[in-house]
Amino acid sequence: MIGRLNHVAIAVPDLEAASAQYRDALGAKVGAPQDEPDHGVTVVFIELPNTKIELLYPLGEDSPIAGFLEKNPAGGIHHVCYEVEDIIAARDKLKEAGLRVLGNGEPKIGAHGKPVLFLHPKDMNGTLTELEQV
Amino acid sequence: MIGRLNHVAIAVPDLEAASAQYRDALGAKVGAPQDEPDHGVTVVFIELPNTKIELLYPLGEDSPIAGFLEKNPAGGIHHVCYEVEDIIAARDKLKEAGLRVLGNGEPKIGAHGKPVLFLHPKDMNGTLTELEQV
Repeated sequence: MIGRLNHVAIAVPDLEAASAQYRDALGAKVGAPQDEPDHGVTVVFIELPNTKIELLYPLGEDSPIAGFLEKNPAGGIHHVCYEVEDIIAARDKLKEAGLRVLGNGEPKIGAHGKPVLFLHPKDMNGTLTELEQV
Repeated sequence: MIGRLNHVAIAVPDLEAASAQYRDALGAKVGAPQDEPDHGVTVVFIELPNTKIELLYPLGEDSPIAGFLEKNPAGGIHHVCYEVEDIIAARDKLKEAGLRVLGNGEPKIGAHGKPVLFLHPKDMNGTLTELEQV
């Protein structure tokens, strides 16, 4: 069911410094910051040959990243995202297997304009897991 | 400099349950457990179309994963691994940029039989980062 690893999201305390580090020290291809007001984040994509790293920084009040950075002031890996072909079929299969879907259980439109869901980290080995329909 | 994301490593409290979940609920291609006594871990590889998830479970005494699971009893993302072509050149460039290399700074032979280094998570946005020469 799950397909490609779409991205690994890393919350960072300083988006400019993190972008510069990936670009200059690690020599990676780093995009421009994109504000995603609907998601309360500013994101920078690091394009690797086979997947992406998504740097996350809080945007506005009530950002879902703010609390994470309070607990992890140096930053940290926030979630992984797997691609699925049919997010409703995936959700129903995972719910049957006893996994909890966050929120009201309905897909939302994610930062890439595609339907996404998040699985409860406690049900996924402590790993916040996003599913994205591609 | 950095190339492909080689893997994302997730420490899990129950390797059999986690393997079964990725295989049966998530429908992924899951390998057999491999003991890596030199690294104090038993690993299971989840093969995704573009990269791997490496499930980690402690093996023997003094496993580097034991303390992590004590702090994170449900499990959690342990590290990410980027591929590099020349690990000595990569190390020297990163040290020049002020990043700390863990241990004595010399590459070790990693779980895949290739030279690896780990960068200090405090210097990498709270993310333990492995470099593997491929």
